[in-house]
Amino acid sequence: MSEELGLSVKKTENFGKWYLEVLQKAEVLDTRYGIKGFLVYMPLGMLTIKDIYKLFENELEIRKHKPALFPVVIPQSYFKKEAEHIKGFEKEVFWITHAGKNKLQEKMCLRPTSETAMYPMYSIWIRSHLQLPLKLYQSTAMYRYETKMTKPLMRGREFLWIEAHTAQKSWDDAEKQVKEDMEIFKKVVTDNLCIPFLLIKRPEWDKFAGAEETYAFETLLPDGISLQIGTTHNLGEKFANVFNIQYMDENRKKKYVNQTCYGIGIGRILGALISIHGDDNGLIFPPVVAPTQIVIIPIYKKDTKEKVLKKCKEVLGRLKEKGFRVHLDDREKHTPGFKFNEWELKGVPFRIAIGPIDIEKKQVSYSKRDEKNELTTPEDGLEKFVKTKLDEISSNLLKKAKNLMKIQDAENYSDLKEKLKKGGFIRIPFCMKEKCAEKLKDNTGAEVRGTLFEKNEKAKGNCAICGEKAEKIAYVAKAY
Amino acid sequence: MSEELGLSVKKTENFGKWYLEVLQKAEVLDTRYGIKGFLVYMPLGMLTIKDIYKLFENELEIRKHKPALFPVVIPQSYFKKEAEHIKGFEKEVFWITHAGKNKLQEKMCLRPTSETAMYPMYSIWIRSHLQLPLKLYQSTAMYRYETKMTKPLMRGREFLWIEAHTAQKSWDDAEKQVKEDMEIFKKVVTDNLCIPFLLIKRPEWDKFAGAEETYAFETLLPDGISLQIGTTHNLGEKFANVFNIQYMDENRKKKYVNQTCYGIGIGRILGALISIHGDDNGLIFPPVVAPTQIVIIPIYKKDTKEKVLKKCKEVLGRLKEKGFRVHLDDREKHTPGFKFNEWELKGVPFRIAIGPIDIEKKQVSYSKRDEKNELTTPEDGLEKFVKTKLDEISSNLLKKAKNLMKIQDAENYSDLKEKLKKGGFIRIPFCMKEKCAEKLKDNTGAEVRGTLFEKNEKAKGNCAICGEKAEKIAYVAKAY
Repeated sequence: MSEELGLSVKKTENFGKWYLEVLQKAEVLDTRYGIKGFLVYMPLGMLTIKDIYKLFENELEIRKHKPALFPVVIPQSYFKKEAEHIKGFEKEVFWITHAGKNKLQEKMCLRPTSETAMYPMYSIWIRSHLQLPLKLYQSTAMYRYETKMTKPLMRGREFLWIEAHTAQKSWDDAEKQVKEDMEIFKKVVTDNLCIPFLLIKRPEWDKFAGAEETYAFETLLPDGISLQIGTTHNLGEKFANVFNIQYMDENRKKKYVNQTCYGIGIGRILGALISIHGDDNGLIFPPVVAPTQIVIIPIYKKDTKEKVLKKCKEVLGRLKEKGFRVHLDDREKHTPGFKFNEWELKGVPFRIAIGPIDIEKKQVSYSKRDEKNELTTPEDGLEKFVKTKLDEISSNLLKKAKNLMKIQDAENYSDLKEKLKKGGFIRIPFCMKEKCAEKLKDNTGAEVRGTLFEKNEKAKGNCAICGEKAEKIAYVAKAY
Repeated sequence: MSEELGLSVKKTENFGKWYLEVLQKAEVLDTRYGIKGFLVYMPLGMLTIKDIYKLFENELEIRKHKPALFPVVIPQSYFKKEAEHIKGFEKEVFWITHAGKNKLQEKMCLRPTSETAMYPMYSIWIRSHLQLPLKLYQSTAMYRYETKMTKPLMRGREFLWIEAHTAQKSWDDAEKQVKEDMEIFKKVVTDNLCIPFLLIKRPEWDKFAGAEETYAFETLLPDGISLQIGTTHNLGEKFANVFNIQYMDENRKKKYVNQTCYGIGIGRILGALISIHGDDNGLIFPPVVAPTQIVIIPIYKKDTKEKVLKKCKEVLGRLKEKGFRVHLDDREKHTPGFKFNEWELKGVPFRIAIGPIDIEKKQVSYSKRDEKNELTTPEDGLEKFVKTKLDEISSNLLKKAKNLMKIQDAENYSDLKEKLKKGGFIRIPFCMKEKCAEKLKDNTGAEVRGTLFEKNEKAKGNCAICGEKAEKIAYVAKAY
């Protein structure tokens, strides 16, 4: 639906402008809806979103999570039950106060997250240890009245996610669940979507409202700013106490469940995918979620048209049969050059072009979206060849993305401030005190995101901010 | 999670009570959430919902509809644009007036349907005849402040549906679209879900707010009450005029598009499926959407346990490999009898039981959910046998459902009133005047649903209500 295909700006020159332009021109989404912070997802965006959902849902269901769906509205009385939780969210919720011409007896909010919608039901359902673990997820939209506006998908007032909520017998079982969540994240986001991330344990003052422990998945965008694309929380018995979720254990003793909740930012992951993999010519989709993996473009003149189209259809059929998502672009109104540009803009990872010479030589011409040159390969064995090339694209995308993920060390405050100017994560020895994090934020806008979860990184020397004895190695970055 | 499996009431004796009990005991959904009219979908309900969505989405995408997603909120200024439309919905919308502690500058409503959310964007996007038809669908929840409360899924304040909105060049193209919608409905609902329906053209006074023509898909529940499970509307140029959706035609003339919208009541279809197919022992799922199609139950004593479980796993593997959704219930804490009852309650269409005698005789015992008796079949060729039996179940379910769909004729008002007492659709000669429909509704609670779309049924004689000359044959029923 766009009239011009070319992007007016290079990604490396002005990432912000490039991002907005590629979203609109490639028809991923439209930001022109009548309410700020609410997006319209167009087909290319929505098809990708659906595929990302499917990848996560499969991994969750393999691990015995089951789908459920709770209402979008939460009555004020439910929402108010957990004190820390409401403190964390009350500034951010949308309130429904009227219906038709009537004022509602009890106002209700759009879910900013669903603990307070789900746990009253958990309290009704859970009776015995035989029912545990209970593992439910829902794929929905969340609503938060964000006042900090950044880029579409990065922070919005309606955003798409999955939230998985579990109840376990013990703290240890909850910790195991949290680790399973991490395993799922790595499998989908890094192995399939080619996006690297850091697994960060949030400091005390930056935990999810109501959680005992918060772990965040953070990636880095090309502008050097960190983006949290998911979190998982060990809630301990906190919510169980408030919502009275108890079970009878093996010895007929009543106990509170331990809980976890896991938030997967589907929209943000799409935003990261576009930002990290795209180039000056447009989107680049990792093959796993490319709505179209392969496009076939016929090259003909009047007298070769019939022959070329026949061959294209034959190749189309062969690739379809092998399960590839493949499209033959046989539109008459556009030149091959126009089509090349359009499919590049739209991020199709693999392009095949077939002309009379290719037919004669029993070959096809092809181009990988992550490189520029056009090459040829024999028609014979094409299916296998394409598979190999798609895998190659995936590993190239991941390799490039890993190179982008800049982590630097800083030993003192002036070094830290200097390095923050260039963006990326900065590792510092840190005292783990909130006042230091506040000072840093006030002076630079950057945040102490937390410590690395997987490696227990020992700090040597003194806190890079206050100079007192360092407790841990912390990761600092500007964040969306 | 239920403690007792048996239903306390027969479906034929008290359909209303049976329905509520089966929803809760089979764990399809829970009605105990803190806001009236808002349901919690439990895993069995949600898995089925997901499958029903998938069936429709596949048929839509085959016919070149593309997925999109528009915001759940509609600004008051958009919502107010089409006069008839707002008249139809203003009593039914939920209003968001505040966010955090702030009053919003412009209030916004939760979508009761999405014409006024989508068409402002259609107006921006559509420029040329080359872009037509535009066919977008979204799978979402809708919000209506219903005051008439009936049964869960039949009428709720949050309900799941698909809405597909198209823009075409001409009235005729829109009419073709409407017919395509009907074809999809028949394929999914009748061929796959084994639910028969009437295709009704709504009378003038009962059209969708803003539509030129409204067609409704209506099925009959076991209580003899009609349920609208979908609609499709030819909107003509009405909304295009209001939202200024114009295209340049082949001769470079500006024209208004013709539009259609198609609403598929996913939640209601689930409600109909449960109501129509279920029996005194619980749910019966049509095999196409059964979350579990086959359950395998081992029958053993201590000394035969190992052998029996081994055989069960072998059969499980064979059936899985063929793509069946099959589950081996090897829980130790329950007897086979308990398991039989539980899986009957949960509607699994095909049950396999394997004991030492079966193994000896190289057979399995089986039972079809739509009949009661247990039979045996050779292990050899089991995959094919199961496939045949599942197909048999589907055709039996449809046959039974068709027998339920009672249509009677009435020639005069007293006959009509008498027959309405027994429920079902009543065919009458009708004058097509609204005042007669109003009189009928006031006196009996029944409604003139409209005329049959597919057959042009000619009326003979006089209107069964007012006695004046009849124009058409109309279908009358009480409706949810």
